[in-house]
Amino acid sequence: MNNKIRMGMIGGGKNAFIGAVHRIAANIDGQIELCCGALSSNPETARESGELLFLEQDRNYGTYQEMIEKESLLPAAVRMHFVTIVTPNFAHFAPAMMALEHGFHVVIDKPISLTLAEAKQLRDKVQETGLTLCLTYTYSGYPLVKQARQMVKDGAFGKIRKILVEYPQGWLSLPSERDGNKQSAWRTDPSKSGISGCMGDIGTHAAQLAEYISGLEITKICADLNIMVDGRALDDDGNVLLKFNNGANGVLVASQIAAGEENALKIKVYGEKGSLEWHQEEPNTLKVKWLDAPTQLYRAGQGYLTEAARFNTRTPAGHPEGYLEAFANIYRNFALTLKSKLEGKTPTAEMLDFPGVEEGVRGMAFIENVVASGLSDQKWFDFKI
Amino acid sequence: MNNKIRMGMIGGGKNAFIGAVHRIAANIDGQIELCCGALSSNPETARESGELLFLEQDRNYGTYQEMIEKESLLPAAVRMHFVTIVTPNFAHFAPAMMALEHGFHVVIDKPISLTLAEAKQLRDKVQETGLTLCLTYTYSGYPLVKQARQMVKDGAFGKIRKILVEYPQGWLSLPSERDGNKQSAWRTDPSKSGISGCMGDIGTHAAQLAEYISGLEITKICADLNIMVDGRALDDDGNVLLKFNNGANGVLVASQIAAGEENALKIKVYGEKGSLEWHQEEPNTLKVKWLDAPTQLYRAGQGYLTEAARFNTRTPAGHPEGYLEAFANIYRNFALTLKSKLEGKTPTAEMLDFPGVEEGVRGMAFIENVVASGLSDQKWFDFKI
Amino acid sequence: MNNKIRMGMIGGGKNAFIGAVHRIAANIDGQIELCCGALSSNPETARESGELLFLEQDRNYGTYQEMIEKESLLPAAVRMHFVTIVTPNFAHFAPAMMALEHGFHVVIDKPISLTLAEAKQLRDKVQETGLTLCLTYTYSGYPLVKQARQMVKDGAFGKIRKILVEYPQGWLSLPSERDGNKQSAWRTDPSKSGISGCMGDIGTHAAQLAEYISGLEITKICADLNIMVDGRALDDDGNVLLKFNNGANGVLVASQIAAGEENALKIKVYGEKGSLEWHQEEPNTLKVKWLDAPTQLYRAGQGYLTEAARFNTRTPAGHPEGYLEAFANIYRNFALTLKSKLEGKTPTAEMLDFPGVEEGVRGMAFIENVVASGLSDQKWFDFKI
Amino acid sequence: MNNKIRMGMIGGGKNAFIGAVHRIAANIDGQIELCCGALSSNPETARESGELLFLEQDRNYGTYQEMIEKESLLPAAVRMHFVTIVTPNFAHFAPAMMALEHGFHVVIDKPISLTLAEAKQLRDKVQETGLTLCLTYTYSGYPLVKQARQMVKDGAFGKIRKILVEYPQGWLSLPSERDGNKQSAWRTDPSKSGISGCMGDIGTHAAQLAEYISGLEITKICADLNIMVDGRALDDDGNVLLKFNNGANGVLVASQIAAGEENALKIKVYGEKGSLEWHQEEPNTLKVKWLDAPTQLYRAGQGYLTEAARFNTRTPAGHPEGYLEAFANIYRNFALTLKSKLEGKTPTAEMLDFPGVEEGVRGMAFIENVVASGLSDQKWFDFKI
Repeated sequence: MNNKIRMGMIGGGKNAFIGAVHRIAANIDGQIELCCGALSSNPETARESGELLFLEQDRNYGTYQEMIEKESLLPAAVRMHFVTIVTPNFAHFAPAMMALEHGFHVVIDKPISLTLAEAKQLRDKVQETGLTLCLTYTYSGYPLVKQARQMVKDGAFGKIRKILVEYPQGWLSLPSERDGNKQSAWRTDPSKSGISGCMGDIGTHAAQLAEYISGLEITKICADLNIMVDGRALDDDGNVLLKFNNGANGVLVASQIAAGEENALKIKVYGEKGSLEWHQEEPNTLKVKWLDAPTQLYRAGQGYLTEAARFNTRTPAGHPEGYLEAFANIYRNFALTLKSKLEGKTPTAEMLDFPGVEEGVRGMAFIENVVASGLSDQKWFDFKI
Repeated sequence: MNNKIRMGMIGGGKNAFIGAVHRIAANIDGQIELCCGALSSNPETARESGELLFLEQDRNYGTYQEMIEKESLLPAAVRMHFVTIVTPNFAHFAPAMMALEHGFHVVIDKPISLTLAEAKQLRDKVQETGLTLCLTYTYSGYPLVKQARQMVKDGAFGKIRKILVEYPQGWLSLPSERDGNKQSAWRTDPSKSGISGCMGDIGTHAAQLAEYISGLEITKICADLNIMVDGRALDDDGNVLLKFNNGANGVLVASQIAAGEENALKIKVYGEKGSLEWHQEEPNTLKVKWLDAPTQLYRAGQGYLTEAARFNTRTPAGHPEGYLEAFANIYRNFALTLKSKLEGKTPTAEMLDFPGVEEGVRGMAFIENVVASGLSDQKWFDFKI
Repeated sequence: MNNKIRMGMIGGGKNAFIGAVHRIAANIDGQIELCCGALSSNPETARESGELLFLEQDRNYGTYQEMIEKESLLPAAVRMHFVTIVTPNFAHFAPAMMALEHGFHVVIDKPISLTLAEAKQLRDKVQETGLTLCLTYTYSGYPLVKQARQMVKDGAFGKIRKILVEYPQGWLSLPSERDGNKQSAWRTDPSKSGISGCMGDIGTHAAQLAEYISGLEITKICADLNIMVDGRALDDDGNVLLKFNNGANGVLVASQIAAGEENALKIKVYGEKGSLEWHQEEPNTLKVKWLDAPTQLYRAGQGYLTEAARFNTRTPAGHPEGYLEAFANIYRNFALTLKSKLEGKTPTAEMLDFPGVEEGVRGMAFIENVVASGLSDQKWFDFKI
Repeated sequence: MNNKIRMGMIGGGKNAFIGAVHRIAANIDGQIELCCGALSSNPETARESGELLFLEQDRNYGTYQEMIEKESLLPAAVRMHFVTIVTPNFAHFAPAMMALEHGFHVVIDKPISLTLAEAKQLRDKVQETGLTLCLTYTYSGYPLVKQARQMVKDGAFGKIRKILVEYPQGWLSLPSERDGNKQSAWRTDPSKSGISGCMGDIGTHAAQLAEYISGLEITKICADLNIMVDGRALDDDGNVLLKFNNGANGVLVASQIAAGEENALKIKVYGEKGSLEWHQEEPNTLKVKWLDAPTQLYRAGQGYLTEAARFNTRTPAGHPEGYLEAFANIYRNFALTLKSKLEGKTPTAEMLDFPGVEEGVRGMAFIENVVASGLSDQKWFDFKI
């Protein structure tokens, strides 16, 4: 027995992509221990998967209901501290709600739920229980994203005037869901993904990133959602004009039929005095541009960065960290927050810097608004929550 | 006396920016000779400017009217072959029309005119006279833009699905037009620029580039035009959703308040099988991406390029050519076309590869449509000519 | 108790840099468990450090001698499988030898020892015991380095003619060892680092990378080692001309006074038909250049990569992995090899792909040869082992 | 007749590469007029070439001797001001000497001559006549190279400690000289190129660039020259260790068998406080790195640049200039110097900023020293002039 924070995983069994990522992210810093799991909706697959992960036999559960119930009966020094839910979207709400009701903290892969209504119920439950819900909007975990946010907050660029964010991927260029690709199958299936495909899967990341860095909120949208591969039921591509609450304008592009792109999330934020540019595929550089001075390259791991950025790196400059470390930052900050609370302390601002239920609600609102705008003939559509 | 094509310049005197660029572009290949000029609307400034450029005294004119009339009386072996008009937008139409009426070919800096109606009159006059009108949409002069166009045409990427073009500049971030900056003064003045600022100045470049590379036509738009610096009369920023005639969608962003940007025109064109990406600030590389194969970097000057690209470079690979050479390609192809016609030959397809009056009409239509769409509450707006 | 491979750590206590990196690397894939440690040469610091890492009290040792002895008395199902030695160079040999003598496998941070003689003794001991020794030449753990190696091996570039490898860092530009910086203190101290500073610390990485990718061996060198910061006892900079066993030539540059550089290891390998280029700071791209075809960008995570590259990534293309994952690849492959042997199986070629005692001997030979060449007036110096 | 500076060209007829480049460079700024030529060693080819360039018939000469003699008999207001010599290396000296003896200024393509002895004779003749000799070391014509030089001179980086310059090309990877390629034929032929191939052709550029930017002089070298393609008589590849007169060390790599490289000249200059990096293939960015502050990207055309850089651009930032403009800067500065002298004025420092006979002598000394060092068993070789 040790002092680590104990995690129970729901979903993420054999062959699941994002479950493995969550486990690595939780492992990296040695603060979290996978103590139990219900790793598949199929009890047999769940147990087989648990064995591969060295779960103790009696905590290798067949269903999440069983896991939550049995764990809640274990002594406090043994039972899991939180569940992490890495199932497809449609299977987020029920286990999250049940976990909260049984007193467990929760991590959920984004988007938080299938509908905005579910998201609001989760928000209410979190407020009611005082538990912590963490949502893995991975990209806000990168140190230079935090640097960007801090520089905007500090007024380095003056008032923000324009935000361009794009998230092109190419992996749905072909109808691979018809060829047995599991990842594309559930993401193009409304019963599993919800009312949006591309915008729900990656558009939400882009919107969250824009709001996270700028500290602004989207207030109006004008969306063009497209199905570019014939026969699909959900958008696989879209372009959205944006207005923010300070008068800034913007554009959000997300596409999964951008052939030849990998995971090319990019953002540019323009202020009165300068601007910033960040690319997820080269995440250790933040380009900062000025009206009358040379462009600067801020680099992860450097001593000149703000505390927020430095707190979220492990290696010196020039030793690139990446996606898994950004993901791990969310888990580590969440774990430090839990540990701090368990020890009766107040978590620091750095510890508390991870996305939560409020971002979850905004994310679902983004999906519902953007789909409604896409269907509308009206140009500007109020962003409603 | 030699065999060069002879040019008379209208506008472009002392301190003018684009006039100097036109002269360099015309000089580079040794095919064109500046034989006369009316270099300013102020006759005194015109003559002083002509002296600095070594114009012969009797062909250093005070007004364009004088120039066109006197030149048309000179023997064919001496008189200018064409006029080049490098004045602000409002002063394009009258000299162009007069030149055409006197039998001179014409080069005009884009956009072709102040209004779509003027552009159509010029088109009619060109058709009537059989003369050649060349419009300096510079960016289509780059060799790798021609490579891109050819690859799309050859079907390398399959059907085009999406086009993202952005043209951010930062030079109008401050209200420099109030501090005596001449360039910003005329470009923010409706009486000199027309009904649009940013979209007329650089949005038209972006639209022309998208259509030139893709071979497609914009059919619907949804425009958000903005005045981000208080007190301006014309848009200094804008975002436009696009639909093309083959069903492709797109986004066009143009901004002159994108603080810290220089002249960062970029385009990405996505097809079913792959995509291309080109950046004006690093013009000698064309990034070509594929669904299942490594991304390729096509480089200017290489032997593997198409004829269209190779025809438009002067130096071997690795010896970067730039903006002035792209500009010169337009002048050179125009000059070769004239020379070919003068010699009674049919110009080749490579020679004829420069923007003309049709692009001028489409450019003015873009401006008028985008302004109308910007003012409308309707989401999708038909692109009308 | 579970099925993980159990690790005992020597060195790497509080405030140590590389120890933390080793722990993260070992954690990432969930295959290895830190079961015990002697985390500092100071027993008190060792124990304090162990508590922070949640070591069980009775396996949180004060010295490595105690650890090796006590662990060897534990039942096989409990005792550590291997030690990892993350002390400064001078303290590698003794614990490594003792561990091997007690039947434990060994991981050592590079370079393997203080002298070539020690390295050879370790090699003999490894051969005698049949145990496995793994050396963390991190950079050979990157997937695209493995891709590069495989492409060279497959003859994609024809005969290799030239190798340029450079490893500039700037962190010793100032004499920070006099201001209490521990990292610079031991690395500039001959009693801790050995006979070379820069070449021992990073030149060895560069040499190993060149030989690993090319499959060639350095046979002759001509070294210029420099002390650029006054008062140092060891080289902080150096340039080395190289000849390889197939007739190829090369240059190796290593510097720790390259002000403004982070960890900018780069390599270019030129063959008859093409070449490759890889930068450690952007490790997920391998640039492949051809005589008569567009340059290609091979990207980590892509399906078109060789098995060797694909085996060493965890995430899809566009989700950048970095230094810690490269490091983790070495640990994971080592762990898979041990597990395979424990299960009586033959490890696959992919599992066995980690640096070992032979690379350790070559690395020490590199250091001794390069120092001797640096002191010599003779131009070419035979690389002797 | 106008006020331009008048140029007579020697060599550079039909199919010559560098002659065309010189003409474009001379054309760009409208300051220089090609008034006569002896464009080939074959009088017939010379005359045909002259016709294509619109030379007047009586100034389209069959030999350079004829040209120099006849031009010197013309009235001052008509005769050429200078000759430009764009023949292969072996044919530089005689026409240069004859031109100087007849009172003409001279431009020569680098290297200045076939031997160091010739170079010294030219230096003596220049000193004796007071005429101006300009040498087209193109790369020192780039604006950001001038920015780099000025920043070093101003002490921005403190004392310079290390210079890494590399110039890899791939175009001689195959023995194309045996397949009728004229460019490779003369460059691999000792009777036309002199005692060095690669080092004479491009190594000299690299050495000049290093000395130009740093303001230092090479004092010792250790050269490894190689013939990597069997059957060649001259080096096609080489690596040179360097020492500079302030104690800095360096490496110069030049290769023409670096398969897949275009014209990839790069330089890095490291000082005590920071460093700079410049790549010829992306010439409009100068990377400036600091010990404790973000890396900066200085960009051509920006107002924050030094006067030396700004004087040598024609377009605003973001409108890329390239190789031809760098070349044109040398011609323009040379022409402004001549014009200034013709008008009895003293040329400014900016006008005088072009390579001359001193650089020519150092260039030839570089070639002779590097070849001698390459043949020597001695490690360090004094750089002798």
